[in-house]
Amino acid sequence: MQTIGHLINGELVTDGERFQEIVNPSTNELEAQVSLADRETVEKAVAAAADAYPAWRSVPPIKRMRIMFRLKDLLEEHADKICALLTREHGKVLNDAMGELQRGIENVEYVCALPELLKGEHSRDVGPAIDSWSEFQPLGVCAGITPFNFPAMVPLWMWPMAVACGNTFVLKPSERDPSAALYIAQLGLEAGIPPGVLNVVNGDKEAVDTLLTDRRVQAISFVGSTPVAEYIYTTGTASGKRVQAFGGAKNHALVMPDADLDNAASALMGAAYGSCGERCMAISVVVAVGDATADALVEKLKAQIAGLKVGDGRDNTNDMGPLVTRPHLEKVTGYIAKGVEEGAELVIDGRGLKVKGFESGNYLGACLFDKVKPGMVIHSEEIFGPVLCIMRADTMQEAMQIIDDHEYGNGTCIFTRDGEAARYFADNIKIGMVGINVPLPVPVAYHSFGGWKHSLFGDLHAYGPDSVRFYTKRKTITQRWPASDLREGAQFSFPSNR
Amino acid sequence: MQTIGHLINGELVTDGERFQEIVNPSTNELEAQVSLADRETVEKAVAAAADAYPAWRSVPPIKRMRIMFRLKDLLEEHADKICALLTREHGKVLNDAMGELQRGIENVEYVCALPELLKGEHSRDVGPAIDSWSEFQPLGVCAGITPFNFPAMVPLWMWPMAVACGNTFVLKPSERDPSAALYIAQLGLEAGIPPGVLNVVNGDKEAVDTLLTDRRVQAISFVGSTPVAEYIYTTGTASGKRVQAFGGAKNHALVMPDADLDNAASALMGAAYGSCGERCMAISVVVAVGDATADALVEKLKAQIAGLKVGDGRDNTNDMGPLVTRPHLEKVTGYIAKGVEEGAELVIDGRGLKVKGFESGNYLGACLFDKVKPGMVIHSEEIFGPVLCIMRADTMQEAMQIIDDHEYGNGTCIFTRDGEAARYFADNIKIGMVGINVPLPVPVAYHSFGGWKHSLFGDLHAYGPDSVRFYTKRKTITQRWPASDLREGAQFSFPSNR
Amino acid sequence: MQTIGHLINGELVTDGERFQEIVNPSTNELEAQVSLADRETVEKAVAAAADAYPAWRSVPPIKRMRIMFRLKDLLEEHADKICALLTREHGKVLNDAMGELQRGIENVEYVCALPELLKGEHSRDVGPAIDSWSEFQPLGVCAGITPFNFPAMVPLWMWPMAVACGNTFVLKPSERDPSAALYIAQLGLEAGIPPGVLNVVNGDKEAVDTLLTDRRVQAISFVGSTPVAEYIYTTGTASGKRVQAFGGAKNHALVMPDADLDNAASALMGAAYGSCGERCMAISVVVAVGDATADALVEKLKAQIAGLKVGDGRDNTNDMGPLVTRPHLEKVTGYIAKGVEEGAELVIDGRGLKVKGFESGNYLGACLFDKVKPGMVIHSEEIFGPVLCIMRADTMQEAMQIIDDHEYGNGTCIFTRDGEAARYFADNIKIGMVGINVPLPVPVAYHSFGGWKHSLFGDLHAYGPDSVRFYTKRKTITQRWPASDLREGAQFSFPSNR
Amino acid sequence: MQTIGHLINGELVTDGERFQEIVNPSTNELEAQVSLADRETVEKAVAAAADAYPAWRSVPPIKRMRIMFRLKDLLEEHADKICALLTREHGKVLNDAMGELQRGIENVEYVCALPELLKGEHSRDVGPAIDSWSEFQPLGVCAGITPFNFPAMVPLWMWPMAVACGNTFVLKPSERDPSAALYIAQLGLEAGIPPGVLNVVNGDKEAVDTLLTDRRVQAISFVGSTPVAEYIYTTGTASGKRVQAFGGAKNHALVMPDADLDNAASALMGAAYGSCGERCMAISVVVAVGDATADALVEKLKAQIAGLKVGDGRDNTNDMGPLVTRPHLEKVTGYIAKGVEEGAELVIDGRGLKVKGFESGNYLGACLFDKVKPGMVIHSEEIFGPVLCIMRADTMQEAMQIIDDHEYGNGTCIFTRDGEAARYFADNIKIGMVGINVPLPVPVAYHSFGGWKHSLFGDLHAYGPDSVRFYTKRKTITQRWPASDLREGAQFSFPSNR
Repeated sequence: MQTIGHLINGELVTDGERFQEIVNPSTNELEAQVSLADRETVEKAVAAAADAYPAWRSVPPIKRMRIMFRLKDLLEEHADKICALLTREHGKVLNDAMGELQRGIENVEYVCALPELLKGEHSRDVGPAIDSWSEFQPLGVCAGITPFNFPAMVPLWMWPMAVACGNTFVLKPSERDPSAALYIAQLGLEAGIPPGVLNVVNGDKEAVDTLLTDRRVQAISFVGSTPVAEYIYTTGTASGKRVQAFGGAKNHALVMPDADLDNAASALMGAAYGSCGERCMAISVVVAVGDATADALVEKLKAQIAGLKVGDGRDNTNDMGPLVTRPHLEKVTGYIAKGVEEGAELVIDGRGLKVKGFESGNYLGACLFDKVKPGMVIHSEEIFGPVLCIMRADTMQEAMQIIDDHEYGNGTCIFTRDGEAARYFADNIKIGMVGINVPLPVPVAYHSFGGWKHSLFGDLHAYGPDSVRFYTKRKTITQRWPASDLREGAQFSFPSNR
Repeated sequence: MQTIGHLINGELVTDGERFQEIVNPSTNELEAQVSLADRETVEKAVAAAADAYPAWRSVPPIKRMRIMFRLKDLLEEHADKICALLTREHGKVLNDAMGELQRGIENVEYVCALPELLKGEHSRDVGPAIDSWSEFQPLGVCAGITPFNFPAMVPLWMWPMAVACGNTFVLKPSERDPSAALYIAQLGLEAGIPPGVLNVVNGDKEAVDTLLTDRRVQAISFVGSTPVAEYIYTTGTASGKRVQAFGGAKNHALVMPDADLDNAASALMGAAYGSCGERCMAISVVVAVGDATADALVEKLKAQIAGLKVGDGRDNTNDMGPLVTRPHLEKVTGYIAKGVEEGAELVIDGRGLKVKGFESGNYLGACLFDKVKPGMVIHSEEIFGPVLCIMRADTMQEAMQIIDDHEYGNGTCIFTRDGEAARYFADNIKIGMVGINVPLPVPVAYHSFGGWKHSLFGDLHAYGPDSVRFYTKRKTITQRWPASDLREGAQFSFPSNR
Repeated sequence: MQTIGHLINGELVTDGERFQEIVNPSTNELEAQVSLADRETVEKAVAAAADAYPAWRSVPPIKRMRIMFRLKDLLEEHADKICALLTREHGKVLNDAMGELQRGIENVEYVCALPELLKGEHSRDVGPAIDSWSEFQPLGVCAGITPFNFPAMVPLWMWPMAVACGNTFVLKPSERDPSAALYIAQLGLEAGIPPGVLNVVNGDKEAVDTLLTDRRVQAISFVGSTPVAEYIYTTGTASGKRVQAFGGAKNHALVMPDADLDNAASALMGAAYGSCGERCMAISVVVAVGDATADALVEKLKAQIAGLKVGDGRDNTNDMGPLVTRPHLEKVTGYIAKGVEEGAELVIDGRGLKVKGFESGNYLGACLFDKVKPGMVIHSEEIFGPVLCIMRADTMQEAMQIIDDHEYGNGTCIFTRDGEAARYFADNIKIGMVGINVPLPVPVAYHSFGGWKHSLFGDLHAYGPDSVRFYTKRKTITQRWPASDLREGAQFSFPSNR
Repeated sequence: MQTIGHLINGELVTDGERFQEIVNPSTNELEAQVSLADRETVEKAVAAAADAYPAWRSVPPIKRMRIMFRLKDLLEEHADKICALLTREHGKVLNDAMGELQRGIENVEYVCALPELLKGEHSRDVGPAIDSWSEFQPLGVCAGITPFNFPAMVPLWMWPMAVACGNTFVLKPSERDPSAALYIAQLGLEAGIPPGVLNVVNGDKEAVDTLLTDRRVQAISFVGSTPVAEYIYTTGTASGKRVQAFGGAKNHALVMPDADLDNAASALMGAAYGSCGERCMAISVVVAVGDATADALVEKLKAQIAGLKVGDGRDNTNDMGPLVTRPHLEKVTGYIAKGVEEGAELVIDGRGLKVKGFESGNYLGACLFDKVKPGMVIHSEEIFGPVLCIMRADTMQEAMQIIDDHEYGNGTCIFTRDGEAARYFADNIKIGMVGINVPLPVPVAYHSFGGWKHSLFGDLHAYGPDSVRFYTKRKTITQRWPASDLREGAQFSFPSNR
């Protein structure tokens, strides 16, 4: 059986005695085992990163940037292999895996703007013959801790920019589907990142805690659930680190009476059920303004769900693959039972789905709840499965209140044709990423990703311009040169020679 | 006796039963008493700020900006009164108070660039007919906790920008010298800030802890000592807030053998002894490269110290006033005794100074230590008094190592004529603010202030461009409009008229 | 009789023998005479500016900026006097004059952001230990030539930014209404601009041609009609200068069938008839999509025009004052006759209006043409009077084609509620300034003003960020320091001392 | 014999009857002939570009950007072929050709930051519920006219950015060495640029004049000599175009007495003689401060010139190849004779050099003049050959005066160790690109290239940030949505349902 190890100082290594099984979500068959790093192994990775830092910091940014150009090429060249790993370990349909990878590549493309992004501000004559300027210098060793749902993309949000800015890096991918991240890191080294500059450790809480408390680690980027994000943030900051920790989400779509409902329904299908809803930007709640709107929308969604095709991720004709693990499947079905118990109307029940040839897989059909109300657990908690909840509001203001009152503030969207309604919504809603007729308002790679409220702990958003600020610290220099004997002297010292 | 109260919702109020005396450092005579807010009073201030927020947030930035133009005028108009308050309660010489106020006014001037600073990034066609842009929206209620040493300037680092960005604010000034901050806040209201938008509470740890834990407070800016800064940071972040906490400093000047020593000595006098060394950017250590450099510098400093004039702050012919309080004076003299005990050479001993007519004042003459070594307490800790330590290094590299090894990383400077040495120093030294022949490299108001290592907890620096980011959160909007019946329809609906 | 002279090197002077009368448009009575500068006088002003340049260039930007803060205060303090001058010489209603001045003050406010705006870009390590940065340095002597219609505002677009950037300046205001510009320049000197840094010459073509060809003048900003703008541009650039020349306009409002017509009609009244239409951003054409839209709009406009009050500008109850001069009045009425002759339908005829007590004034009532067609002179040429033309299009596309085909490309706007239509219009229309339900889309002072096609000759727009680029030139420095004997030597030169 | 044609609408075509011979400068043997486009052919290219524009403008920037990533890969893949073409037609040594190409590739890399570079400025609430933002939209058809000395690099300064910004392009390369530019354009199409978006026409003045006057061409970028640059600028602007025209240069190195002369001499060798001095950034004059400095420098240069190896460009052991053409060789030797006649001291005479096996080539050895004085033709004019002039000044101020008084203002550099002298020089010298111990201060690709005085006609510099502004025009949108019946109505329309 294949053992997935760590990438430390350019070497693939396996330590210790603790392993975790990697199973295919579509079959629950064992595919590999991953070594779980103990403290000592993580510290080796940190040491490798710390040792590599001084030399790497001094490499001119344009040379670090060029490695990112090569990385983009390698990612495109090896896309099929990466996607196969994603589908094998995560379960998502290959097309969806390709979409994920493409988003990750776009983050690498943005890093290729590095010399532009690193520019400091220069001021001449802040006083008489005094100049001042700022530089954005690297932090040192940075670490990333990434979730199972985007095993390729989320690491690519982090380390390409961190490394390009002159930092060295230790990545701890999800131990459920670590292969893509490990393989991509190897491509990074192939592209020219020196050994030690980029390291990968696989592991569990022991690895995380080691990274959180090791004083050599200057910064931590995390993406995962809110309770863990809060733990990462408070533990990491208490240990003197810069931390950005992205947590959970409950993203609402507000559908106005004037919306193009056919268009909205189609958009919502992908936003709610794509990748089985295992996305922090998935739409999991629709708030329809007016019963007429809600009724019509439910009808349209029912019709579309009926045509949804669920099955093995290797078959690109499928719309949805399996959930990531059996325990996660059980957690999601638990939420469905809870919703029924709480009195929500289960319009479509995807439970009990059997996929022919993959009867042991973690499959669940699309579920649709109507008449969900604030206070229900299926509204207050993040389900992270193919479950869409319809809520009904009488007014736009009431609908916005539901969204603003929710603990999470990651993404939201509005469907309308009306300029004023859209502008009012975007301006006032207490959510970090807002779509206007765009169901998944994930910012493009040259803007930045981040939610408000309990969806983000930290000041700076992920990727895009904010990530440059996160992975660098400002240094401000003020310079004056004393009156020069040389220059003044030079004016008078040679007259006798003429 | 005058009682200094709180400014809440536009009203001056005094609560409760706890008061602290305000004494004149030059005489130790009682000048006033300040009310110490209890939890309830602080919560009233927070409530006032929370209530004022929704309306204030919607005022167009240019109107908020214009209040800052008026504030600048009022600060200039009332400068004498403010400086008198500073000198009465803090002790600094009037000229020095005027310098402090001027720096604060410069921060207000920078805020007058608000509409430029708040600009978001707009991208057309992030996809076909899809646009995306970012906005920097206010946070809500923000709070500032400020130190005794710059009672006017540090509050002006904070609330003008916070308020101009659309936030509302609660300021807790130092309880030792609160009058200037309170008076300036009143000028803010006179300039047009609505009641409730800017509030001041005086108090001690109870007030601080209330601000740190009240969930309505979204962000905290703090300036003070490192242990308190760390407490503020960990407590505030654990309570879900955005925090920037500026702590202690030990700022080293590196003097190279080629430096213009007359110029360096003059510069160091002001940097070390100005405001009695009670500045977080004061130079408290000189590292001279080579004994010859050190010997010459010590001679020059001795000569200049002999001419230093210490006395009451109202007399502008004085160079130094008293220390802020009697306990602080005792703490500083304790450090001097400790330095002698540790074996440093006390070249000039300022203890025992009596200022005629002000024999009860907290006076201490300038002190100069030579041959200070790493490991001595007078090197490892911040003294915050008129005590300059000379250290000697054989090489520039050794001198830089001393600086890099120190816990603090606020400011530093180098004296040299050599372009290469200066560039190497500025590039490599692990300090946030670097001067090249500039002894106090406090960034001008349009750059940002912040140290590295234990001098700053948080990602973003104070004032200047970083403060805009600190007092706002990013919102990213992605917009697509569905194909318009209106536009397309309009193309075909009137053909019979043609 | 008052003689209006020139402001050269801080002195008010009157030269030569040529004068022009200044008459009050409301009465056609003589108010003053203005001296018309000959070549020699203009050259004196240029010489004064050239002499003042080297010292002014070296004043730190923050000091230059502070003068602008004072200028803003002085403009606000003397607003009534300035507006009285505007009304006396131009004729516009006092309220309208105040609006003009306010816009000018906003440009001064923007200049107060100078240190932020002048920041260059700094790049560390463009190669090993090589740094590079850019500075935006002043040009030297700049000149501005400004039109009669905004005698206060347009000069304030130009010289405050030019002067603040470190240039010196010669302003040639319109000889029809020069007093406000001259007075404001005097306030500039009172605010602290040194003599010679800002000069004003009054004059006609001789003055213009002298400025255009004097080699000491580095840059020219012009606002006026298109034929003159083109002459200024080609003459000035042929003489090696940087030139931006803003010309004529014919601004169309596109009204969609879904627009709020009451709102649109009210907005159009001000946009078409405010300041008698003597504005380069006035709406002079409405293109209504669909006859129903056009018919309804014409009815609403007729009703509102009936209530329009025309009279002396000193009476703020009036909506419109007189036209600027008798010849201009005759030119405008000529266009009206031409429109009738061409077959347009003159729905409202404002000719023949007599204002009681001001029977000799240049008065003309609001005029409304319907069924104007492309090709008519009243459509192809700029009338610059209170004449609004309605055109009718069957489709939005046809309406946009009319706008795109026009020679001018200054401003335009669309009235609609529909997000998609607005976005399509703003994206595709070939016009530099676009309003969405905003009839006069003059950019605010922190954006920049500029049209496309024959409305602007030059690359950079007026005021806002572009004006900083226009009034400065880029200098790029690349710096490497040779390996330092000092630093390296210092490492080894003192070992015997240890 | 090979005929080099035009690339129009994706097709290689050859028109007409006029041809020019392409000869190898190393042998003067005929290599090919190039078709010289007549007006009709150029107009076809412009028509192709005009037709391709509307569709290309609407391609999202990120897709246009990706083509540039592919272009970089193709340029690297085919570097050997491109360099062989450069050496064959221009004569430069292969290594030098590779250096040129590398610089061109860096410009393409910068274009890969496109989405970041195109961001406009967004302002929320410029008034109540009014937003405003700017967009940088493409111009339409742009054209580039490029010189013989960098046949690959200068076109890559222009069209990749122009095309990426959404423009279409017509390139007219130098007719002396057109093959590399044509081949690279073909690689552009291979990378994904659609036919018609990028076109190449070869030609002479007829082609240039057609481009200058065709109204469909919106912008012209030119690099060449100053008289032609001025012609291009005045003709193009008179035809309503945006023009940037880069002209001649005479770049001075100022050598201070404290400079590291070994280092300076080595640096000057490459800067003066590299590519035979046929570079607009070549150092052609050294101004030494003090006779001692000059004497020492001349000795060091003489020694190094003695070791210079001149020969065929295909042999990478050579330091210099032949001059580009026989007439150019004669022009350069004419300058040498003129310098002798004017009284300058010809220390090294490179005339009469014969390269074995290449006796018919346009070879000229390195020449060194000493004691050149202002007013000599070899100082006032650009020689564009391997001729270095030493001038002597008594003081730094005198040396700077010589530089400032020269007609050209492209580049300059100073050699010194002194921070103050360097800062004074960089701040005050009237030159656009300044090196401090950097002999060829060509800005890196992420800064911008441009001289002052007669070295540049136009406002905006080449490549880097300025090129984005040159190839786009600003559009400013101001948006307000009328109070929405939808939103307000929605609040009250369903009450009976509750």
